Amino acid sequence: MRLSQMLFVTLREDPAEAEIPSHKLLLRAGYIRRIGSGIYAYLPFMWRVLQKVSQIVREEMNATGAQECLLPQLQPSELWRESGRWDTYTQAEGIMFALKDRQERELSLGPTHEEVITTIAKEMIRSYRQLPLHLYQIQTKFRDEIRPRFGLMRGREFIMKDGYSFHADEESLKKTYDDMHKAYSNMLRRSGLAFRPVQADSGAIGGSGSQEFMVLAEAGEDEVLYTEDGEYAANVEKAVSLPADAKTSPFTSYEKRETPGTETIEKLCQFLKCSPTQIVKNVLYQGVYDNGMTVLVLVSIRGDQEVNEVKLQNELTKLADRYGGKTLLSLKVPDAEAQSKWAAKSLPLGYIAPDIADDYIADQKQLDRKFLRLVDKTAVELKNFVTGANESGYHVIGANWKEQFQLPEIVVDVRKARPGDRAIHNPAQTLQSARGIEVGHIFQLGIKYSKAMGATYTNEQGEEVPLVMGCYGVGVSRLAQAAVEQSYDKDGIIWPVAIAPYHVIISVPNISDGEQLQAAEKLYSQLNEAGIETLLDDRNERAGVKFKDADLIGIPYRIVTGKSLKSGKVEVVERASHKSEEIPLDEVVSTLKQRIEVAIHK
Amino acid sequence: MRLSQMLFVTLREDPAEAEIPSHKLLLRAGYIRRIGSGIYAYLPFMWRVLQKVSQIVREEMNATGAQECLLPQLQPSELWRESGRWDTYTQAEGIMFALKDRQERELSLGPTHEEVITTIAKEMIRSYRQLPLHLYQIQTKFRDEIRPRFGLMRGREFIMKDGYSFHADEESLKKTYDDMHKAYSNMLRRSGLAFRPVQADSGAIGGSGSQEFMVLAEAGEDEVLYTEDGEYAANVEKAVSLPADAKTSPFTSYEKRETPGTETIEKLCQFLKCSPTQIVKNVLYQGVYDNGMTVLVLVSIRGDQEVNEVKLQNELTKLADRYGGKTLLSLKVPDAEAQSKWAAKSLPLGYIAPDIADDYIADQKQLDRKFLRLVDKTAVELKNFVTGANESGYHVIGANWKEQFQLPEIVVDVRKARPGDRAIHNPAQTLQSARGIEVGHIFQLGIKYSKAMGATYTNEQGEEVPLVMGCYGVGVSRLAQAAVEQSYDKDGIIWPVAIAPYHVIISVPNISDGEQLQAAEKLYSQLNEAGIETLLDDRNERAGVKFKDADLIGIPYRIVTGKSLKSGKVEVVERASHKSEEIPLDEVVSTLKQRIEVAIHK
Repeated sequence: MRLSQMLFVTLREDPAEAEIPSHKLLLRAGYIRRIGSGIYAYLPFMWRVLQKVSQIVREEMNATGAQECLLPQLQPSELWRESGRWDTYTQAEGIMFALKDRQERELSLGPTHEEVITTIAKEMIRSYRQLPLHLYQIQTKFRDEIRPRFGLMRGREFIMKDGYSFHADEESLKKTYDDMHKAYSNMLRRSGLAFRPVQADSGAIGGSGSQEFMVLAEAGEDEVLYTEDGEYAANVEKAVSLPADAKTSPFTSYEKRETPGTETIEKLCQFLKCSPTQIVKNVLYQGVYDNGMTVLVLVSIRGDQEVNEVKLQNELTKLADRYGGKTLLSLKVPDAEAQSKWAAKSLPLGYIAPDIADDYIADQKQLDRKFLRLVDKTAVELKNFVTGANESGYHVIGANWKEQFQLPEIVVDVRKARPGDRAIHNPAQTLQSARGIEVGHIFQLGIKYSKAMGATYTNEQGEEVPLVMGCYGVGVSRLAQAAVEQSYDKDGIIWPVAIAPYHVIISVPNISDGEQLQAAEKLYSQLNEAGIETLLDDRNERAGVKFKDADLIGIPYRIVTGKSLKSGKVEVVERASHKSEEIPLDEVVSTLKQRIEVAIHK
Repeated sequence: MRLSQMLFVTLREDPAEAEIPSHKLLLRAGYIRRIGSGIYAYLPFMWRVLQKVSQIVREEMNATGAQECLLPQLQPSELWRESGRWDTYTQAEGIMFALKDRQERELSLGPTHEEVITTIAKEMIRSYRQLPLHLYQIQTKFRDEIRPRFGLMRGREFIMKDGYSFHADEESLKKTYDDMHKAYSNMLRRSGLAFRPVQADSGAIGGSGSQEFMVLAEAGEDEVLYTEDGEYAANVEKAVSLPADAKTSPFTSYEKRETPGTETIEKLCQFLKCSPTQIVKNVLYQGVYDNGMTVLVLVSIRGDQEVNEVKLQNELTKLADRYGGKTLLSLKVPDAEAQSKWAAKSLPLGYIAPDIADDYIADQKQLDRKFLRLVDKTAVELKNFVTGANESGYHVIGANWKEQFQLPEIVVDVRKARPGDRAIHNPAQTLQSARGIEVGHIFQLGIKYSKAMGATYTNEQGEEVPLVMGCYGVGVSRLAQAAVEQSYDKDGIIWPVAIAPYHVIISVPNISDGEQLQAAEKLYSQLNEAGIETLLDDRNERAGVKFKDADLIGIPYRIVTGKSLKSGKVEVVERASHKSEEIPLDEVVSTLKQRIEVAIHK
């Protein structure tokens, strides 16, 4: 393509709307254009990158025997009501766009396709002989993000590959899940990215196990904890570890103490000269289920630990049945207003005891609101501990479960793993922290959707049982931007060769110089004929402008038809290293062809 | 691909939801699945067809120098308000889905992208040196159709290629428009379709000229009028012709006559023993402009002619200025209720005179509603004509313009051309009628959008002037179904080779016969290696079922590894002709490769 015939506009200054390097660069280099909040146009360069990423994804998916299809973006609300996710997605999380058609029927814009594909499976799969089956699509998806940002990283309209597999049993699911692990690793490797698969929380998608594929980058929104032996890596939301050992408590007899101004663990430790590992901290949450039921939750945890709210949310979801609900709609620390509604008298924040219920929330039971006590594993084993006295300015010391306080019935693991914690698989390893951009997520869904939606098949024994499902997603547009976030310098983007919009750019320093232009045109047609995707910068611009633009847009190889033409050579500059060399005209095509092939297939 | 590993389910019976053959066949053969009204999933076979059509479209577009991009489907309402189309699209026609995000900002789902692309052009194009420029995309689009039907023909979610070109002047636009005419003809020819380009109305898109590409098929929703010399073809909405000559009126003196029970032209002619060409028929319409202004329109036209409402709509749109509006929102024959509101006394329907205004709608002027009289060319030249007397049961005869009736100021051509009319370019040719499926539409938009949205560039003279635009659409999913509508038989689909999901299907009559299976497997891998897209029907089914399925899904060549194996041959059946021949095993690949190449490139 000739630059003179393209919509080619670059910016010298960073656009005000962009926060992270990749977003700034994609805007400056004319790859994308903002049309609305979280909504971007993919201009021709970007579209070429996205097509290349899509093609790599497609090839790896096809190689596993999965088949491509395209499901509708408009989805009737009935399907989402059947699976029980309509309310969660349109209201609680509110991340699904909903609309009404001219008949006032409710529709949504697909953020994901479990409901649609399960409906198709329900209608078309009858027998175990049709299994396993794996369908995927590459499609624009929609999420009404609370805070769209970072360009394509967290947009409201984005491109995803999503695949859904159907199986007769867990063993077959596990095999496809493992195949997907390999396929996803291949896709990312072939796209030229440094990445790490990590254990992940399954969130609103649900299911029994999942892994995320994280592209490592400082601007990543996710924190990953991993061990250096390569044996463990998890999203911090999901990570587990061994807590530090608790110190033996110096308080051997039970006593109530005046502890003024000790609302925080730190102040309390200073005041009592004790370790945070000797304290039972009691944290209040308020959960709301999909049937409207509000539950006040008190979590008792060891003083040096923090509550991982994703884990807590999962525990509360497991308890939904108990409150007549199906899912938890929201979880938060109750604000002042909520607290005043809850408590019969003002809550002694910072001084709450594990049994706050009796004293402070007696009224709640009359209101048919529920109170739930949970204790984290770290707090169970403590002896002679310090904890709140349910009275502002007072704590108790030397307390023990089953003596002064009933041990809550439900013991959970809701503690947040932290960098520096010892690893469970090998306590000699400590957890390290890294930032990552989630570009892939694979799930073992099990029968969550097939059961809810009645998608069954007849097994070999002639019984009708629910289909076992898996689902697998790749953020295609996010992956493309993640590549930039991982690979740029002060001059611009450095595309991995496999997903660069073009392989080569020929910069003609002076287009009024007939010799330069002629050499460039000849190379341009030779390179194109050899299947090397080439740009010709034939604009009437200064050489300096052309070189700056070539660096900014990040094409792997730049050919300059300049002074060295006198000796029958051109300058070839590698974008990543800025290394320059002179190559004889008749060797340019073969040299570049070989380098590009090596780069793409390495 | 092995059928045993696909989601392959065919139906023996026609599904109740489908009306036309192509819709029935795509459902029966498992190409598509209905998810909601006008909403379909494209299953793997269909997706392969759509990808092939898309690739042909892409190649033809790229060959003209147009560049592919992808614009957002979510479009901020502000853009549509700028162009002045928000109300027309969301309310009057109501064909655009609108929704609100979590911030209560209005968005629409793109049915077309003039607004988005013009915004980009406005921001990025500064100078004539950047022109001409042509961007296109292949994308899912949305229309909230009043009556979604015929499967992919008129869906609410469908795939389109839409392209937009920008020019410094009309001459450059005309060149690209001509290039598109050629590119579209190539696309349809290469896809194996019989089609006809026709003159078309530009509708809500606007602009100065447009052509539609019609795939000829009985189930087509459009009527095309054409001449056999190939010199003229137009959508009936747009078609022009010479009306038959009027007969000389026998009524040489003016007189009011009692004509009871003559509300129709036919009855009136019988009663008065005259020709319909001697009558001035007066038809009432009610138009509403975007500023809320309602106008009562009386159209006088020769009695043997019908009003073409699309032409009338265009005339009224031209008059929008006069009523302080920008566009016409709706046009209809006023219903009984509207008439009673309009008329000071009950309207003498069937007996209305060209000057109904004075007598019946005197009150309207007080209501600040407007009355407009239009006369069609066919009525202007009439002498001594018959027309209504503005009194039920009475007509006048021997009337003349400027004597008994004022000739309306505005003379228009709003008559409907009909099969049998004489052609304007050559009165010896008469118009023929055919049904067509509109799969492409190309427009010369001119400066309609660039002017409304302030998209200007600096021309060679240094003046800032609006960009001249064109736009060009192909219904990719509609085209794919149109191919089926044009090519099927009682046994199923007959795909044109170029867009068939696979080229060859190998049907193994009996998979427990080792020799059959072995020969089939060998051919399967040889064909795939030769780049021939091949299905292997390795299901444990009866041969008859396999042959029926192969015919239904319409794969161009079927190989049967049956009895002829004994003599080292297989049976090869051509789907279109059902012709069967025996081909030696070692000639199958080369024979088919050659036939497929000929079929694709013819």
